[in-house]
Order: sequence, then structure tokens, then C-alpha cells
Amino acid sequence: MAAAVAVSLLVSPAAAQVSPEIEACRPAVTALLQEGLARGQAYDKLAALCRVAPHRLSGSPGAAAAVEWARQQMLADGLQNVRLVPCMVPHWERGQVAELRVVEPAEAAGERLSILALGGSIATPPGGQAAEVVQVRSWDELKQLDEQVRGKLVFYNRPMDPTLLDYGAAYGGAVDQRGQGAIEAARHGGVGAIVRSMTTRLDDFPHTGAMRYAADVPRVPAVAVSTLGAERLAALLGRGPVRVRLELDSRWLPDAPSASVVGEIEGREWPDEVIVLGGHLDAWDVGQGANDDGGGCCQALEALRLLLALDLKPRRTIRCVLFMNEENGGRGAEAYRDSVADALDRHVLAIESDGGVGTPRGFGAKATPEGLATLRAIASLLEPAACGEMRDGGGGADIDPLHAAGRVPVMSFRADGQHYFDLHHSERDTLETVWPREINLGAAAMAAMAYVVAELEQPLPRAPPDAAR
Amino acid sequence: MAAAVAVSLLVSPAAAQVSPEIEACRPAVTALLQEGLARGQAYDKLAALCRVAPHRLSGSPGAAAAVEWARQQMLADGLQNVRLVPCMVPHWERGQVAELRVVEPAEAAGERLSILALGGSIATPPGGQAAEVVQVRSWDELKQLDEQVRGKLVFYNRPMDPTLLDYGAAYGGAVDQRGQGAIEAARHGGVGAIVRSMTTRLDDFPHTGAMRYAADVPRVPAVAVSTLGAERLAALLGRGPVRVRLELDSRWLPDAPSASVVGEIEGREWPDEVIVLGGHLDAWDVGQGANDDGGGCCQALEALRLLLALDLKPRRTIRCVLFMNEENGGRGAEAYRDSVADALDRHVLAIESDGGVGTPRGFGAKATPEGLATLRAIASLLEPAACGEMRDGGGGADIDPLHAAGRVPVMSFRADGQHYFDLHHSERDTLETVWPREINLGAAAMAAMAYVVAELEQPLPRAPPDAAR
Repeated sequence: MAAAVAVSLLVSPAAAQVSPEIEACRPAVTALLQEGLARGQAYDKLAALCRVAPHRLSGSPGAAAAVEWARQQMLADGLQNVRLVPCMVPHWERGQVAELRVVEPAEAAGERLSILALGGSIATPPGGQAAEVVQVRSWDELKQLDEQVRGKLVFYNRPMDPTLLDYGAAYGGAVDQRGQGAIEAARHGGVGAIVRSMTTRLDDFPHTGAMRYAADVPRVPAVAVSTLGAERLAALLGRGPVRVRLELDSRWLPDAPSASVVGEIEGREWPDEVIVLGGHLDAWDVGQGANDDGGGCCQALEALRLLLALDLKPRRTIRCVLFMNEENGGRGAEAYRDSVADALDRHVLAIESDGGVGTPRGFGAKATPEGLATLRAIASLLEPAACGEMRDGGGGADIDPLHAAGRVPVMSFRADGQHYFDLHHSERDTLETVWPREINLGAAAMAAMAYVVAELEQPLPRAPPDAAR
Repeated sequence: MAAAVAVSLLVSPAAAQVSPEIEACRPAVTALLQEGLARGQAYDKLAALCRVAPHRLSGSPGAAAAVEWARQQMLADGLQNVRLVPCMVPHWERGQVAELRVVEPAEAAGERLSILALGGSIATPPGGQAAEVVQVRSWDELKQLDEQVRGKLVFYNRPMDPTLLDYGAAYGGAVDQRGQGAIEAARHGGVGAIVRSMTTRLDDFPHTGAMRYAADVPRVPAVAVSTLGAERLAALLGRGPVRVRLELDSRWLPDAPSASVVGEIEGREWPDEVIVLGGHLDAWDVGQGANDDGGGCCQALEALRLLLALDLKPRRTIRCVLFMNEENGGRGAEAYRDSVADALDRHVLAIESDGGVGTPRGFGAKATPEGLATLRAIASLLEPAACGEMRDGGGGADIDPLHAAGRVPVMSFRADGQHYFDLHHSERDTLETVWPREINLGAAAMAAMAYVVAELEQPLPRAPPDAAR
């Protein structure tokens, strides 16, 4: 057993050693975690947001309600300089009709498969559009079929790879079908796209999400079908030709005025230097966007309230930015970036929570090795709460523009992701899937990370440009 | 920034180094994790168990259904030597009535607080029992009140400490009120016990659980009140005397015959040496016992099926034991221990999953330092799935008797516990709180741990006795 003993010495987790100035923040970090667990209000905030504005797609009345709710919440929490950063947003409406019915084979005629329009899809003609279905499992297959696709609905049925231990990587490996499916179908003469929902779970909830059109090909309707619906369609196709009737009445409207919502705690020593904590206020118009990303918004909001509750006045400014239009445009992120164009070099760090509000695991950061080491040392203060992991690589759709424009170090708050894509963009994404201790602990972890970075004598070094990575 | 750079070197996670024989198992471990995620059936098994036998309290028809379901599942999965280990179990029935109504003050008269009988409580007289309520927040307070308690209902309102980062520790710090409340109330002349539910969440779900009586004091009824009910009662008591009427019709019946269910994969080389994987088949008669502990049972069952599916025939026997009567007696654990009394020294390891089926984190073990080092090296193979933590300390109510009698190393499978006590022993503990990837990944992690231990040339050293720890 000598070998085993040797292993013991090697794998005993080394106690993280941190610099004195970080170590000095440990009591504040512990107090934040305990305050979050004992009296945290992130869950209560999320319950309120899900009640006031369960559907918050950009341009909708719900999105406007969410903006006003967030503004009032920041004022109620005592944040400073509460303001809106206006932007014009794309305005798409799902409509009332989303039906996919089997026409042939005769023995399945009338069967209805569960679908949702993909975000941005055009409508079908009123009464729907009947067409044959052709299944593809790869882009190569589509290319080979080429003209055989003409006049048909292309059924993208390449599942997410369930064996990937990182569920997010499995999503990343399949979501090109959703984004590009309509374009590539139309390029080969297809009249629409039916995309297998982005989840490994077999159930009857379709998952919506953004899709794109291209200027050089016709726009065709695109929908997500539930995974059970996809299995059914594949089974029917295994027996012979399948015709379906697809009907959608979604529509595009002119861009609408909207805004991101900003509030902050001014730094006591270097108020011009800023740490951003954010999430995105818009959400898809199914479920309640509780995880994506109402919860992230409420964690960012609550992080600042926790600092105020404990009277932790940071040296640098800590700013909450609740971005509009992450899901289908990114206009809020662009507008915020532009609004701080001459202050980017004083943006020390930006953290976004946009990976669901499961149990906290830690963070990931895009930073120099030196910056990453500092962040890792700070994260180690969170290990007693089992959320002290720090990964190399991170950011978020709303804060990445700050990195691109000003090499601002960017960071993702990371909740455990093993069930995130079971609910993402579907009717399942409701408050009932969120647990108070988990969302509150995440808020406290974000507050702790921001606070310690705000206290450091030296700001974090600028992040390396993406090209270098 | 020199200090920060130094920190970087110190806290970079050391790659775990493992002995060659453990390293040789890495492909099998990876295959198990991927098979679990891709085709795991732990969730499907749990769905079936929750449908067939949602209420499985010892002695009930539901418990009998669960035993038969488990036996058939083991046969269907192809386990060997499928058998029952019989035991006689305590038989308590909740009954139909559990009411706590305010009588005074007049302005609250008729208000009903949400309660559940604690498991094992006697009934009140038919029509209920009216009494004044006296609140205590500590055993000292009860002792000081002493005779003032006579004729009253003792309201134990010491909350779980929400600031403890380990939710299980918070539970451990408060659950004495549930176990001992009726005894100590009666010792001072109290006529019953009302115990604040064991959760930090404020809601209206009462949480049941085991309570005890003592031979030297009268038996009095005992109930759990929801946390919101407890807050209401405390608020009323803050304004003056409170009288309530408590009614329960729970009852004790004679001990009933039942059984634990056992099946195994015989070792190819040392079939007499055994690794036990277990959970407990009985559950409280509210919700569906999905997390406590239907999920643990299904993970243990599924772990063996995964091994068979991958044709991983271990050197030692891997045995699934689904214990009866963990919640209110431990008779199944005793009967299993007695049934293997002359084989305890060939029980190499026992692992129980009984901490909910949230996202997997790792394991905890009661073993010698040498044994723990080996287990830690094995667990490191699970790090790609973020469940490779190995803690010093672990076991389970059903396997601890194996340790006590034979110093068998015992181990708990550890899921993340931040929401476990929000649902534990309440109507919330249903299938809807379980996610397929999480329960399936846990089953695979248990299979991997058991498999590698079953392959080791040398068995794990016996665990130290408890007295030495």
C-alpha cells in the first residue's frame, strides 16, 4: 500500500495561500455569505420579477415592466445614480399560433408535435404551409441532399451529445442548427426549418431561442420541436415519406425603445474605477425566464444590497447593470459599452451571472495569468461555501463587448449546470426550479468577488485580447 | 503584483497523481460516466418507484409494493442472487386528521396552522385537546420554566441556523427538538410538543420525521408546524397568551413483516469479498420520498445495471442492498448486518446514497488515512464530472452498523445539499425536484467508485473504530 500513501500526500488539497490584502477581506467575505444565507433577498426579488413580468422579450410590455421594476427595486435598495441607458431593440412577437401537424402517412394524420417558433421566425401563410419533411443530421448531409431539399421542410435532428460532462459544451455543439438552420435550408431551396430542441432530456417541452436570417437567401419559417416530437418525426420518417402542415403567426414590428437599468455604490476612494455586476433583464416569452436570466439579474441586484446591509463601502465603485436584449440582439450591451466609451480603461472588472441559478460552483474569467491568479486567490475565500472554483475562461454576452472594446477583464459567475438546459428557453424555466439558498448564496459570492476586487490596491491588469487566446 | 504571482503558484490545483492500478481503471470510469449520462435509467427507475409506491413508510402497503418493485427491478436488470432479507418493522400510521387551530386570542380564533404529526406520535383524544402554548427556544429555557409548562403544549421554536454554509450541519443543530421534544415536554408536565419544521425556508409545508418516547415519562402527541406557522404562532405569543386545539388520529399497530432487497454482481475473482451499494427503500408518507431516499435506491440499483451494460465484471462482488426501515427503526440495517455476521471481514466497503439526489459533488468516507488516500485517488478520476471531492468522514444510517460491528469502511455519496432540507420529509419531496442528468451522473459515480475498489489488488484497510475518531 506504499503507493497509495504516496498518493495521499500528493493529492491532499493544498490550503490556498492568499496575499495579505486579500486575506484581510476574509471576514467581509464570510459575513456576506452568512448574510446572504440568513437574510438574502435574491429569491424574493426573483419571485417579484416573475410575478410582475414573467414574459420579458425585448420590445414587449413585459420588458418595459421589468425595466421599471428594476429601477424601482434599485431605488428601494438604496443604490446611487440609478438611471436608464436607453437603446432601440428588435421587436418580434411570437403570435398565437404554432402548430405542426402530420398530414401523411395516413395512419398518423392529425398528430400534433409540440413546437415553438424560434425567436425571429417569420410567419407561414395563414392556414399554414404543407410540405414534405427531410431529415438531416449534419451540414454535410444537407449539402449532399442539395436540390432534394427544394420545396421541403428541413428537419435538423442532430441531438446534443449527452456524454459530454459539460452540458454547456453539449449545447454549444448543437445550437448551430438553431441559429443557422433557416438560412441553410433556404439556401438549398427548403421552405422552412424544424429544429430538435436544445436539451438532452426526452420530454414534450420545445425550447425556443434565437435564429438568424441572411440577406442573400429567402426568409423561411423556423421552429423548435420537442425532443419527443423529434423522436416521433424520425420514427415516422424511418417508415416512409412524411408530410406535415406548419402554421405560425409570429411577426416582426419596428424597433422599439427600451433600456438597460443601472445603479451603483460609489467607491469611497476611487469612484471612477468600476466593477460591473450584471445579468440580462430580457427573457424569452415562455416560462418565466427565472433561470435565464431573471435569477442572474436578481443576484446582481442583491449583491449590492448585501454590501449596503453590511455597510461594506468599497474603495472602487460597484455597479449593477441589468442589460436589455441579450437574447435577440445585444443592443443593451452595445449601448452600455458606448455610454462608457471614455471610461473603459477604468472598468476594472465585469461579472455576469447568466448560466442559471443552480447551486453555486464558482467563476470563470478572461484575464491575464497574473489577473487570474489574483482572482483565484479571492475565490479561495469562497471555498467554505463550496463555490470557490475559478476557471480560466469566462465572460458573458453582455460584458464581452467591454472586453472587446477595452480589454476589460470579464468573468462569469458559475452555477452548477447539469440541469440548466433541461429548462433553458422552455416553459419549464419557472420560479419553482429555483431554491432560495442557492440563488442567495450566488448573490453573496458575486458580492464577495466584486468587493474584494474593489478593495485591491492595484487594479486587475487588462485582459489579453481574444486573438491571443 | 509580485505577491499575486506567488499566490498563483501556490493555489494552482495540483493534478491528482494516482497509482498505476487506479489509473488503469480510468477508461472504465469515463465509460461509466458517459453511459450514465447517455443512457442512464436512474431517473426512469425513480419515476416508476414514485408512481408504484409514493408512500413507503415501514409496515404500509406502499412499503410492501416498493419491496416487490425493487425485487422485480433487480431481476429485470439481470442482477444475481436476488433475495429478500426479512425483518419485523415498527408500524405506525399517520391517520387522517392533523389539525392545529387557534382558540385564543379571539381575533385569531379558528386560524389553522399547517402541521404534520411527527412519525411515531400518539393520537390526541378524539375531538382534540385544547391547551395553552408555551414557547421555548432552548432546553435551558424549558428547564427554567419547569412547572409553568404543566398542562401546556410546548412549542419548540429554535430555528435552524441559516448562516451555516453546510445545510446538513444546520439540520443537525436543530433536529434534537424533533427527536426529544415530546419526552422533555412530558418530563415537565407538558401535554404535547409542537416543533418548528426542520428547514430554513419560510413556507407553509410542514416537515415530518422521527421522534422518540421514553419509558419513564408519559407519551404525549408531537407535531411539526410549518415555518410560516411557527412565525405566526410566535407573533401571536408576542401579544399575549395563546390557546390552541390540537387533533391527531395517528396510531401504532403491531410490528409488521417486511424486508430489505438484495441483488448483486458476483466478483469474477474474489466473489466472497463484497462492496455494498445502498439506499433505503422506506420513506415518509408525504410527498414521494423522491430524494429521501427513492433516488438513492435508484442510484444504487442503476449503478449495478451500468456495470452490466458495459460488461464490467468486477474482481470482487458488488452488491446492491435496499434497506427497509431507515426512517423509524433501522431494523433492515440490523437484519442485514446480522445476516452477514460471519462475512463482515469480507465486506470491503459500503457506500450509501441518502443525502438527496441533487447534483453530485463527491463522497465522504470513514476509513484509515491510508484507505482515505486510496479513495481520494479514485475519486480524482471523477473530477472531469465535477464530482471528485472526497471528505474525511461519512457513512449512512444503514451502513454504519456494518462499521460498528466489523469496522467496515463506510462512505456516503454526496450530492449538493443546499436545497435538500427545503424538501426533506415534506410534500415537496417529489420527482419534479429531481433532474435526470444529476441522478444518473450520481449513479455512474457510485458505480465507478465501487468498481475501482472492487478491482484493487489489496482490499481497503479496515476502518478505525469510532472511539478512536
